[in-house]
Amino acid sequence: MDVNILLFPDFETLDAFGPVEVLGQISEYTLRYVSMDGGTITSRQKTPIMTEPIHHTDVTGILLIPGGQGTRPLVNNDDFIRKLGDAANLSTYCLTVCTGSALLARTSLLNGRKATSNKLAFEWVKSVNPSVQWMEHARWVNDGKYYTSSGVSAGIDMTLGFIADQFGEAQAREIAHHIEYVWNSDKTNDPFSIC
Amino acid sequence: MDVNILLFPDFETLDAFGPVEVLGQISEYTLRYVSMDGGTITSRQKTPIMTEPIHHTDVTGILLIPGGQGTRPLVNNDDFIRKLGDAANLSTYCLTVCTGSALLARTSLLNGRKATSNKLAFEWVKSVNPSVQWMEHARWVNDGKYYTSSGVSAGIDMTLGFIADQFGEAQAREIAHHIEYVWNSDKTNDPFSIC
Repeated sequence: MDVNILLFPDFETLDAFGPVEVLGQISEYTLRYVSMDGGTITSRQKTPIMTEPIHHTDVTGILLIPGGQGTRPLVNNDDFIRKLGDAANLSTYCLTVCTGSALLARTSLLNGRKATSNKLAFEWVKSVNPSVQWMEHARWVNDGKYYTSSGVSAGIDMTLGFIADQFGEAQAREIAHHIEYVWNSDKTNDPFSIC
Repeated sequence: MDVNILLFPDFETLDAFGPVEVLGQISEYTLRYVSMDGGTITSRQKTPIMTEPIHHTDVTGILLIPGGQGTRPLVNNDDFIRKLGDAANLSTYCLTVCTGSALLARTSLLNGRKATSNKLAFEWVKSVNPSVQWMEHARWVNDGKYYTSSGVSAGIDMTLGFIADQFGEAQAREIAHHIEYVWNSDKTNDPFSIC
């Protein structure tokens, strides 16, 4: 299955590369770095990544959407949100990290569903689309094909949880051990909750 | 101060981008992605990163060396090791993650110093240079200007420890909170130790 990592200017580096580290351990997955127009995309931490245009890509696999400062202008970019909605709709699974859930919420695909986001940006995220059931106390949330996580490093916990759902908990624990990561495997255990 | 992130083919993605996420929160730091010859460098998880040639770069700041499968052939690449030694020698601080310490050990700059590495690769790392005081039980080790960490995600803990040493523990805790990361702030607390 293809994993498409959707990058945009000023995405938060670890939002993408925490999950990438986990997903990259699965031999059945092929990782691809995509953006709306292709070319070089630079993260908030100035990392220049080469991307393929998303319209050249088979988007029916896993779609990963990071967050970061770059999400703030993009929630008001109708063309971006329309294309994102098309890709997320076609995906088999769609994972967001941090304020990546604000972008996905803007497409309306999360309407009526449970989702979460970074606790420091929570009021803004809720304001983007109040029709989502925003969960203020959750390390990550799974609702149907959608997985949404809290801030930055929560993306690693969520992605290990996704792997546990797909391949069993033993596989997730083996990956966590391999990357010497102390996995918070309980999605309701949110050390950064504001409530 | 400049932070030079030294990339090479098949580096482990999170080894570089965990520390990058932390270092990128410090406004005094300018992050640069470098390699021995410049151009596109692809990580083990197939991330294509654009890099500058290291000889075009002021290397007197912080040098970050990730690990990964790519270190295995490089310990026997005399030209790479010589250039790495020159850069590490000129650096003010030199940080390695996972088997990045094997590369640094090969330059002889760690001889007689305390250092650590990934616990799953420890026997190989020790064999690269037995003149280093390899610490089998350590999340990370600091000896002079050198910081070496255990595997992959340990790089995040080490880099927060480095920030605590540079700017005080409150600053490190603020960054950890900002990225919703539960920091293992005790470098002697090694959950993946083999001894």
